[in-house]
Amino acid sequence: MTTEVPRKIILDCDPGHDDAVAMLLAHGNPNIELLAVTTVVGNQTLEKVTNNALIVGTIAGITGIPFAAGCDRPLVRDIQTAGDIHGDTGMDGPQQTQPNIELDPRHAVDLIIELVMSHEPGTITLVPTAGLTNIAMAARKEPRIVERVKEVVLMGGGYHVGNWSPVAEFNIKIDPEAAHIVFNAGWNVVMVGLDLTHQALATDEVVAAIDAVGTKPAKFVMELMDFFAKAYKDNQGFDFPPVHDPCAVAYVIDPSVMTTVKVPVDIELTGTLTLGMTVADFRAPAPADCKTSVAVTLDHAKFWDLVTDALVRIGEVDA
Amino acid sequence: MTTEVPRKIILDCDPGHDDAVAMLLAHGNPNIELLAVTTVVGNQTLEKVTNNALIVGTIAGITGIPFAAGCDRPLVRDIQTAGDIHGDTGMDGPQQTQPNIELDPRHAVDLIIELVMSHEPGTITLVPTAGLTNIAMAARKEPRIVERVKEVVLMGGGYHVGNWSPVAEFNIKIDPEAAHIVFNAGWNVVMVGLDLTHQALATDEVVAAIDAVGTKPAKFVMELMDFFAKAYKDNQGFDFPPVHDPCAVAYVIDPSVMTTVKVPVDIELTGTLTLGMTVADFRAPAPADCKTSVAVTLDHAKFWDLVTDALVRIGEVDA
Amino acid sequence: MTTEVPRKIILDCDPGHDDAVAMLLAHGNPNIELLAVTTVVGNQTLEKVTNNALIVGTIAGITGIPFAAGCDRPLVRDIQTAGDIHGDTGMDGPQQTQPNIELDPRHAVDLIIELVMSHEPGTITLVPTAGLTNIAMAARKEPRIVERVKEVVLMGGGYHVGNWSPVAEFNIKIDPEAAHIVFNAGWNVVMVGLDLTHQALATDEVVAAIDAVGTKPAKFVMELMDFFAKAYKDNQGFDFPPVHDPCAVAYVIDPSVMTTVKVPVDIELTGTLTLGMTVADFRAPAPADCKTSVAVTLDHAKFWDLVTDALVRIGEVDA
Amino acid sequence: MTTEVPRKIILDCDPGHDDAVAMLLAHGNPNIELLAVTTVVGNQTLEKVTNNALIVGTIAGITGIPFAAGCDRPLVRDIQTAGDIHGDTGMDGPQQTQPNIELDPRHAVDLIIELVMSHEPGTITLVPTAGLTNIAMAARKEPRIVERVKEVVLMGGGYHVGNWSPVAEFNIKIDPEAAHIVFNAGWNVVMVGLDLTHQALATDEVVAAIDAVGTKPAKFVMELMDFFAKAYKDNQGFDFPPVHDPCAVAYVIDPSVMTTVKVPVDIELTGTLTLGMTVADFRAPAPADCKTSVAVTLDHAKFWDLVTDALVRIGEVDA
Repeated sequence: MTTEVPRKIILDCDPGHDDAVAMLLAHGNPNIELLAVTTVVGNQTLEKVTNNALIVGTIAGITGIPFAAGCDRPLVRDIQTAGDIHGDTGMDGPQQTQPNIELDPRHAVDLIIELVMSHEPGTITLVPTAGLTNIAMAARKEPRIVERVKEVVLMGGGYHVGNWSPVAEFNIKIDPEAAHIVFNAGWNVVMVGLDLTHQALATDEVVAAIDAVGTKPAKFVMELMDFFAKAYKDNQGFDFPPVHDPCAVAYVIDPSVMTTVKVPVDIELTGTLTLGMTVADFRAPAPADCKTSVAVTLDHAKFWDLVTDALVRIGEVDA
Repeated sequence: MTTEVPRKIILDCDPGHDDAVAMLLAHGNPNIELLAVTTVVGNQTLEKVTNNALIVGTIAGITGIPFAAGCDRPLVRDIQTAGDIHGDTGMDGPQQTQPNIELDPRHAVDLIIELVMSHEPGTITLVPTAGLTNIAMAARKEPRIVERVKEVVLMGGGYHVGNWSPVAEFNIKIDPEAAHIVFNAGWNVVMVGLDLTHQALATDEVVAAIDAVGTKPAKFVMELMDFFAKAYKDNQGFDFPPVHDPCAVAYVIDPSVMTTVKVPVDIELTGTLTLGMTVADFRAPAPADCKTSVAVTLDHAKFWDLVTDALVRIGEVDA
Repeated sequence: MTTEVPRKIILDCDPGHDDAVAMLLAHGNPNIELLAVTTVVGNQTLEKVTNNALIVGTIAGITGIPFAAGCDRPLVRDIQTAGDIHGDTGMDGPQQTQPNIELDPRHAVDLIIELVMSHEPGTITLVPTAGLTNIAMAARKEPRIVERVKEVVLMGGGYHVGNWSPVAEFNIKIDPEAAHIVFNAGWNVVMVGLDLTHQALATDEVVAAIDAVGTKPAKFVMELMDFFAKAYKDNQGFDFPPVHDPCAVAYVIDPSVMTTVKVPVDIELTGTLTLGMTVADFRAPAPADCKTSVAVTLDHAKFWDLVTDALVRIGEVDA
Repeated sequence: MTTEVPRKIILDCDPGHDDAVAMLLAHGNPNIELLAVTTVVGNQTLEKVTNNALIVGTIAGITGIPFAAGCDRPLVRDIQTAGDIHGDTGMDGPQQTQPNIELDPRHAVDLIIELVMSHEPGTITLVPTAGLTNIAMAARKEPRIVERVKEVVLMGGGYHVGNWSPVAEFNIKIDPEAAHIVFNAGWNVVMVGLDLTHQALATDEVVAAIDAVGTKPAKFVMELMDFFAKAYKDNQGFDFPPVHDPCAVAYVIDPSVMTTVKVPVDIELTGTLTLGMTVADFRAPAPADCKTSVAVTLDHAKFWDLVTDALVRIGEVDA
């Protein structure tokens, strides 16, 4: 698809139906070199999402990279999970697979630090699609990673849209202090928030295209989408489910899949109604030193083509 | 223009350039019966905005109704004024006129209560175009006004736009506790916020139409707009100034001048970044008992026609 | 007892067992000229505490002064009452008496303003023994009262003690915004808080002395104390009940009944654990312009002698 | 002094004059087995306090244990240091010594985790005398340490006293989120706060006793106390400086050196006036499962005897 050097990423996630699709996209796309998959409490408990990550890795045939578990609770707040959207296992829908991948013994926070510090500066992109606890802990434990990371492309937040409160999104709301750390650390942050991901709907056409791939991993995605569509219909009234997390991966693959705009973004930590809001200041053009940008408009066709293409490339896997 | 019974309103304002236009619109439009003009600290000190209200009344020939001054500071917070937008007098631009109207001795809070309690229930609409201190004080001092008022149509807030902070608007931010009282009192509240009023731009065409009226009051508006345009250009980068306050009056005259949507709205009182935000919950259809709605889209031509028409009807005034 | 001119006070209260004792003390002591009794929601609803005030006035034979009702809810927050301490009527215990006093038609806020503005500056002391809603509303509606009032001697708060939360007292916690207004208005405030009033215990000896008075009003106090003692035993583990409100009146009668210290005091409005705390800064000597002071140590015998003496002076009343 | 098995502690500090005395006390007392000294930003930058720790170790002859540096900034907030009290180096006063101890390469957070996980459960006491960033990070990175630690005896907070705000103490205020984590983690926490440490004054008599020891380490303490006394006099008006940090060590050596009381304590994270307050609830006896206690009264003589005795035991050191 391209002759560029693939982009090295660490995917920090909490699978999660859409996290699973993000993993598959990262694994199947040739523009991405997936260095590690790390997990963090979020959609479900750390234990469950870690097991889910191993399952997805098994189904997708992701070998030769470490899978490491991180923090089992947010920095300051109590645990909140999203069983209404992701079910009891965190990845309800497909029949449970036994993972054949072993968990790396390192803590995700240490693995992130080691990878960033051992690679050339400016080569690794962090792609968190969950609460930002691991990333925040890593930035505080080893502050030097901040200037070595190329950028942080995260799924989370929303400048005009909320889902876990009127104006806050789940990934940010469950650990607002971690989000505050990440958004203010000093690295470049691209926020792929609900404003964008609510455009990434798995329409009938999208589902048909995935179905046509016909492989086991594609069938797995079909089963994920079945459950996810119903959960979003029942809980948030969506006709088609928004598949958030692969949007962040898609941006790394090809930024032209969406428009973004530079704007100062900060995290509300004390609001009664607004806790965890990603407060963007659109009142004036962003100052020259602004390090945060937000995703605005998705090229729906191009995005889903990337997902389908990744599934085609992954092909059949013996899991 | 219509054979309806005119809508009785009390205009609670802090003139202010756009408050002045709101007064002229309310006075000149036959669908409005202006019962009183009350003033409150806001764009400038109480003393200054009260004097400005008397000046506008003098220029527009508003006679036979009380003008009363209210609160000289917000409920809880310190005074903030908007000299950058409205100048030192609060209505900079036109040459200073000597008012020929005398201030009513009653406190605005008492006047509001008296008018509401002495008129038939459901007949008076409150139209605040300033901080909500007077209205909140009246609701707390005489709680029975809440069910007697027809509705509160206010200029303030913004569900996606701020001007006094990234997400808060001036009228709400300067007295968030008063806004909290008003939005939660139990009456119907129509919030005509920045989302709407940033569409009410005084374009060249608009200004030309006003200029063509050719009367002294119209000339006064021209002078106001001159200053206001420059202030908004210099301070907020607008090509044409948004003329906020008459939008609320226009809604009372003819709701079809804008679209509105029912949505729960509450005021953030503790946020570090979000203090005074009008938090609207668009995640689901508003519940049946929702009493708040927000203005969304303005019919720009119809709105400005109302303003010009009012100026024509006011005609020449001997001030 | 003294040849001084009696101190003019307005007692703003929410009877309330200890408010009743405060009324009796104010009425019976020759150093106090009670100008008015005003009521405000607090220990119970406005309707109930107002009725209780009329009952106490009837029992004590308080004639010739206005009793006026004020605000029926706090400025910003929802109503909280203290039924656990004061019972369903707000003054449980004594048999219900039919009041023979008529309520003044004026709003308490207006009455307070009228009295302060019509008396010589520096002659009226406000004695609030309830939430500060009325006083705050009065200060905002007519700011000139602030410099005309001699001082505000209030029962409320606690610099090291709370009862409605670990660090907040009921009268302040139920309307912290009103307290914020009152403590920051610029007049002198003497805070007679829990630090002091938890010393004002109605011990067996105290009760015996009151019992010995033998009049109907004294018998009424006995019945109040019976209920109050049990409520404080059951709810807060006190061996003898702290009789808070008359302490503020006692201070006006004779400041030597307690020690006080000047210290800056402000009200916490946003704390999760500390909302409504009266935050005193003891880190350094109070600055010369400090207007707030707090009561520290009570002369228990002198205080209760004042109460008993007032009951003796009131004597038998035909209610 | 005793035949007990010495108490194993990790001293997490930010030397700091009183931290230095705490190190000397821990090193010189036979009831303490000092496993490690870890450092964290606080009184000065991480670099400076770490260098100071190495200097104190050199002067006191502390060998055979790791010294490790931890976090260089608080979890969420910006860095605040206490140059007014501890000077530019964080340990101003004594002539600068060149440390002869090498820093351990491990991160303090990892060292704390390794030590706790490799020793028998219930054998290690954490003694933080600085902001709680390291301890909080360790608890979040390896949650199993919480039940393995014997207890946390920390210098910080104050149930009735503040120094960095009217009601908050420096160590807690500079990283309130970390404090929130530590106080709510589930282990036993003994808070040796300002209520206690303001009794640990280095009076003339105390200083004379230390002077009489006559060794280089004692002379070093004398020089520290000279500077510290002046700083506390100038900045907080103390006649004699309160030597906070060794109090926590003294409690581990011999709890009878102070009285403590069980009381629920939590950290205020959102208060405008009360941020970082250690909110203790004294309204009722602590529940049976209460894990927090606070120090109340110091045995001044016994405490300073411990310090002097430690200096005597350390004796002369070739630094």
